[in-house]
Amino acid sequence: MRPGPSQDDVRRQNLGALLRHVHVHGATTRAELTTTLGLNRSTIGALTADLSSVGLVSEGTPKETGRAGRPSLVVRPESARVYAYSVEVDRLRAARIGLGGAVLDRRDLPRPRGLLAAEAAPLLAGAVKEMQQVVSADAICVGAGVAVCGMVRRDEGLVRLGPTTGWVDEPIGAALADELGTDVPITVGNVADVAAFAEHARGVAAGCDNVLYLYGDVGVGAGIIAGGRRLTGHGGYGGEVGHMKVVRDGKPCECGSRGCWETEIGEHSLLRAAGRSDARGRHALLEVFDAADRGDARAQTAVRQAGDWLGFGVANLVNVFNPEMVIFGGTMRDLYLAAAAQIRSRLNSNALGACLEHVRLRTPALGEDAPLIGAAELAFERLLADPLDVG
Amino acid sequence: MRPGPSQDDVRRQNLGALLRHVHVHGATTRAELTTTLGLNRSTIGALTADLSSVGLVSEGTPKETGRAGRPSLVVRPESARVYAYSVEVDRLRAARIGLGGAVLDRRDLPRPRGLLAAEAAPLLAGAVKEMQQVVSADAICVGAGVAVCGMVRRDEGLVRLGPTTGWVDEPIGAALADELGTDVPITVGNVADVAAFAEHARGVAAGCDNVLYLYGDVGVGAGIIAGGRRLTGHGGYGGEVGHMKVVRDGKPCECGSRGCWETEIGEHSLLRAAGRSDARGRHALLEVFDAADRGDARAQTAVRQAGDWLGFGVANLVNVFNPEMVIFGGTMRDLYLAAAAQIRSRLNSNALGACLEHVRLRTPALGEDAPLIGAAELAFERLLADPLDVG
Repeated sequence: MRPGPSQDDVRRQNLGALLRHVHVHGATTRAELTTTLGLNRSTIGALTADLSSVGLVSEGTPKETGRAGRPSLVVRPESARVYAYSVEVDRLRAARIGLGGAVLDRRDLPRPRGLLAAEAAPLLAGAVKEMQQVVSADAICVGAGVAVCGMVRRDEGLVRLGPTTGWVDEPIGAALADELGTDVPITVGNVADVAAFAEHARGVAAGCDNVLYLYGDVGVGAGIIAGGRRLTGHGGYGGEVGHMKVVRDGKPCECGSRGCWETEIGEHSLLRAAGRSDARGRHALLEVFDAADRGDARAQTAVRQAGDWLGFGVANLVNVFNPEMVIFGGTMRDLYLAAAAQIRSRLNSNALGACLEHVRLRTPALGEDAPLIGAAELAFERLLADPLDVG
Repeated sequence: MRPGPSQDDVRRQNLGALLRHVHVHGATTRAELTTTLGLNRSTIGALTADLSSVGLVSEGTPKETGRAGRPSLVVRPESARVYAYSVEVDRLRAARIGLGGAVLDRRDLPRPRGLLAAEAAPLLAGAVKEMQQVVSADAICVGAGVAVCGMVRRDEGLVRLGPTTGWVDEPIGAALADELGTDVPITVGNVADVAAFAEHARGVAAGCDNVLYLYGDVGVGAGIIAGGRRLTGHGGYGGEVGHMKVVRDGKPCECGSRGCWETEIGEHSLLRAAGRSDARGRHALLEVFDAADRGDARAQTAVRQAGDWLGFGVANLVNVFNPEMVIFGGTMRDLYLAAAAQIRSRLNSNALGACLEHVRLRTPALGEDAPLIGAAELAFERLLADPLDVG
């Protein structure tokens, strides 16, 4: 029932499209913008002037072009001046990220065990305030994005269930806002969702409209891009693929049920199968992959089994979503690299031929920083939706 | 990277929004259109005049309003004059459906076993031609939509794999076009996808943005609405939930793999469990439900088991998609009604609490006609995207 947009809507969309282009692709000539956006030269000029007047972009002459004639002006995002804060709760990391996606500053804090949201918020807010001290007075903060492992209620930034932190109904968004004491808008997202968002915007999945990004930590979740848009579900909880049951009456899961996919491919399961039940964390996991590499039979069996189960679940998701790319992030990246043969073999035997035809398996291009960059993208989304509102 | 729309785009969107409103909601006063679409009165007047000039809507005075003053004119879809053909391949049904969704005419043909696409096409085309004979000369056919069980390659209307028909790579779209010998645009869709589309547009899921429509026949598929849009996947094969594996090394499936969900909840499995391996089809299935109702222990066990497996798979999908509604269509409707207790119980124990909070379980409002109505909607979509192109 959506009617067409008003003239103001159209201008806002055009401003957003131009700003998004330089945000994603960096400095671009007016000539290229004219072609890419399909708008005429005078419109591009007017839009650039508007964005420039509020300090979001700047214009200048390009470097040596080697062509004759007057070179087309280059439009650059004001990367050093316009920025968002980005916070990754489970790893206690914070960054200041400029328009255009560059990490301008960052803090990686050590993480004490059993941290509550009420305790995490002041630590993260402290890191943000520290970074704030060296920001010049005329810089523009467009917001803060928060990435968190667990189920996040979309509207409120409430963490319903966090497998890494053990949090239940923790209001991390509100806690951070309190600590920061500013009116900067804060948007909270699931870590797999924001990592997928980052890889789709400026990573390995750029240009792909149907993408599955698997992110493993203690739990396993997915960020899903369907038809070019994030799939979030009704309450914001979409993508809880780790709780797809793969074994009826299987191993008990943190969620209270049994036989969830993450009980076969998650950290605990792999460490237990490798005979290291007491170990914990990414480091311990990497030791298992190392041991398997060095010929440790028990580690090899554990990795092979987990790889087979990873392929089993991916095949299910490939049949359900028909994606063109599956990305393996977090611990799923390590498992994918260690057991690619099992994964492909299981995928080939379980997935439908038609769904398998075009699917590419990939590791993230943005590496460990994908969640931080994606969380910042949440904040930039608000800016891109209405660029002149920044003033 | 999408720039804002041009003035022509805006007009096209507004025309589409107005026409969509009367297509879905029926006769509407200009005053209501002004409010609902958020456009001013003169714009609504101009849009209505445009649509009226090409014969898509008509205007008239409303029936008795009971209010003083000049009544607002009513805009009606030209339901008898503007229509689409709709074809359901697996059940050999064809209909002529008017703008607004009313079934103007229909043909239900008897279906011989083992029919090839090359044989189905002339039968269905014959039914269409028969209906065509009584259509008045000034009526406007906007296209034909085709619903088919199986995987449909989006761009070409090619049936990759049809479980009911046994078809492999059958070009049903092209075959129908050849038989009809017209240049009417033909769009082919999976039966679950189009039924979901129909229920979302004008059925039980109207107003719901995240919907899972399960459709059972010999196989089981899903039509998925995510964020208000159809989820089709990269090649058009999205929603093959029947081939989600629920039992490792389980029963062999038509797809060549084992343990697929449809081997536990599909027609064959239920009939076999009820001791009726030689029986086939919906009628035989209904007999099992009847027998269970009358106290037949074997039938009861078969229904209970299938219901439990139905709940098992729905729980997985609820965790993955976080839908606000799950609709049970085709044979899944019968199974849902016969085993609602098992389904709810399994859902409660397997699905995540947060995902379960808002989900409603429903049967289709459009009944058996949902695929026919949805297939027509595929054809109407083209009209709504650019209404004046109809001329």
